[in-house]
Amino acid sequence: MNVTARGKTQHHRTVTFDARRNHVRLIEQRLLPHEFKIVATQDFRETAGAIRDMVVRGAGAIGATAAYGLAQGARAFRGGGLRQFAAHVEKVYHALKNARPTAVDPVNAMNDVWRAMARGASVAEQQAIALAAAEEFANEDVRHCEAIGRYGANLLRNGVRVLTHCNAGWLAFVDVGSATAPIYAAQAAGRKLHVFCDETRPRSQGATLTAWELAQQGVSHQIIADNAAGHLMQRGEIDLVIVGSDRTLGRTGEVANKIGTYTKAVLAKRHGIPFYVAIPLSTIDWQLKRGLDIPIEERHESEVLGAWGVNQSPKSRVKGFRSGARAYVRVANPTSGARNPGFDVTPADLITGIITPAGIFKPADLWKRRAKLGFTI
Amino acid sequence: MNVTARGKTQHHRTVTFDARRNHVRLIEQRLLPHEFKIVATQDFRETAGAIRDMVVRGAGAIGATAAYGLAQGARAFRGGGLRQFAAHVEKVYHALKNARPTAVDPVNAMNDVWRAMARGASVAEQQAIALAAAEEFANEDVRHCEAIGRYGANLLRNGVRVLTHCNAGWLAFVDVGSATAPIYAAQAAGRKLHVFCDETRPRSQGATLTAWELAQQGVSHQIIADNAAGHLMQRGEIDLVIVGSDRTLGRTGEVANKIGTYTKAVLAKRHGIPFYVAIPLSTIDWQLKRGLDIPIEERHESEVLGAWGVNQSPKSRVKGFRSGARAYVRVANPTSGARNPGFDVTPADLITGIITPAGIFKPADLWKRRAKLGFTI
Repeated sequence: MNVTARGKTQHHRTVTFDARRNHVRLIEQRLLPHEFKIVATQDFRETAGAIRDMVVRGAGAIGATAAYGLAQGARAFRGGGLRQFAAHVEKVYHALKNARPTAVDPVNAMNDVWRAMARGASVAEQQAIALAAAEEFANEDVRHCEAIGRYGANLLRNGVRVLTHCNAGWLAFVDVGSATAPIYAAQAAGRKLHVFCDETRPRSQGATLTAWELAQQGVSHQIIADNAAGHLMQRGEIDLVIVGSDRTLGRTGEVANKIGTYTKAVLAKRHGIPFYVAIPLSTIDWQLKRGLDIPIEERHESEVLGAWGVNQSPKSRVKGFRSGARAYVRVANPTSGARNPGFDVTPADLITGIITPAGIFKPADLWKRRAKLGFTI
Repeated sequence: MNVTARGKTQHHRTVTFDARRNHVRLIEQRLLPHEFKIVATQDFRETAGAIRDMVVRGAGAIGATAAYGLAQGARAFRGGGLRQFAAHVEKVYHALKNARPTAVDPVNAMNDVWRAMARGASVAEQQAIALAAAEEFANEDVRHCEAIGRYGANLLRNGVRVLTHCNAGWLAFVDVGSATAPIYAAQAAGRKLHVFCDETRPRSQGATLTAWELAQQGVSHQIIADNAAGHLMQRGEIDLVIVGSDRTLGRTGEVANKIGTYTKAVLAKRHGIPFYVAIPLSTIDWQLKRGLDIPIEERHESEVLGAWGVNQSPKSRVKGFRSGARAYVRVANPTSGARNPGFDVTPADLITGIITPAGIFKPADLWKRRAKLGFTI
């Protein structure tokens, strides 16, 4: 999507590949929203490091980064036959996989690339196929998000006021995003809309990443405290909710997503406000039978007990602390601890529809539509 | 309640009066939870300044501070007859009233004191009555909170897990607090309990003040992001919710309280979890007929866009920024704005009961019990 930096507006993807230099190019997301910078990883180990250290995050984005990383590693191989090459690719694969051991997207993406490579009869052919397959993976991620946008935009009439939670935007994918795709598509179709971004404590991805995205794209928006959505719904100021999903149960339609999603769904139900979940197909889990069985990560309490930002203290208050420096401040009582569940599960009865690249479905219908969604479970 | 500072545990009230020095003594609440300090105001102008600058905040606490401030001002009067004295007291009254022009508690408290003073036949007598009446106002605030505690403690069985929002603790009153009173009373009765404190963005009073109070009192507690309560309720980890109230409509039972209260009430209803509101009688509004007519203050967006805390950044990251210094960090995207409603309104159908100093009532019953509550509307 568009980014304006140093007065120039350019289209960017979250992840791209520089074939001449054999570099993966990434938006350095840890600096956002305060600084926009592209970094290039020189080899597959650096690419794995970028995934591990969260230079890049989000399901689609780390999938594509791993796919490119595998191609990068394969293309760096010099000399030797297919057997040695295969051993080398194996090493690259595991380095990238171990960067985020619980994430499923890098593994799926690399498996796609590796399967395609098997068609090549020589090292050089397999190297060329690796890059083509990685590019295809990235392009398909974009096409899927665009399809979500086309279906979802039909839900957004002119003047609509949308609530979103966390960041399921283009920064989490190769481009366009899932929850944001309908917004960008409706805007491109000339419709006016206004987005309320839940701050999304404790990590504040709504206030940082989603707000940054929307600002870059010129979408009218305001950040709200996570506490404020209920009040705005009560006063009739929110027409529709769209969120993303980290895991969607194909058998039940339950959705695991960033902590606080469930609360917004309960509020939307009380107010008769449509609640939609936009998902790439890769997040559907066809195995698990109960949302209660989804493991909920308990994250470090420091996230709840304080906040990261850039210093804007009046000079007189904080001597020697350069304005603009990034800092963590402890907000909470110093002797108190915190609970910090990272995700919650929204049951199907609270979800109006699930927006997929293959259309919008009732959550309870996912299972019987699995063939249409391209699955042969 | 108890405060442990420099290794010594002492009982403190939020507001007290030093009759010998004619000083109002206040806990400097702006330094909490990171530093505990008592400040003494030398004259009524300093006392008004402390109210204005929020050294002291909370309905009961600013009421008592204004009552003491009026006595302080009256007692500082030297020479002249009752007529000159009355003009002086008038001046003191307006200085204290104008410190927080929209707050109703300082006015009610000072009216109590002033009415009592009229019984005195001389300046000296009226000066003495002023102090006695201010002390009586403060003591009554404490007695009312203790009564809330006695009634509310009956709701808290051994092992109960309570959710609370914002700070309606003893720091907001002279002592004991409203929403916290049942917790302290149950603890004193030997019952075990655990409290989840909603962080309460954007001003984080739950993470700062309530957590500090509970820690000082040795009550088991954890801070949670405002997003997490729904998940904990879903997993059966919350048994009961108690919050305070800024304004309660006597005719309808609707409750205006800190933003986010309504959301917790909606969640509690969905999960069949009792939702109680603890109120001092002074917050009942017998006039207003619809909660929708309660004006909701829209506060400055900087509260939502960042956070105040003390620096705990790793030294290497923020050069020259002394660890422990208080600072405001901007969290949000620098080019985005925010909406910041300060309060919301919870309808009566979501409230299990209203805990008052005169007993626990169904919200819809407040009006017909108004005589029992001591009102002659």
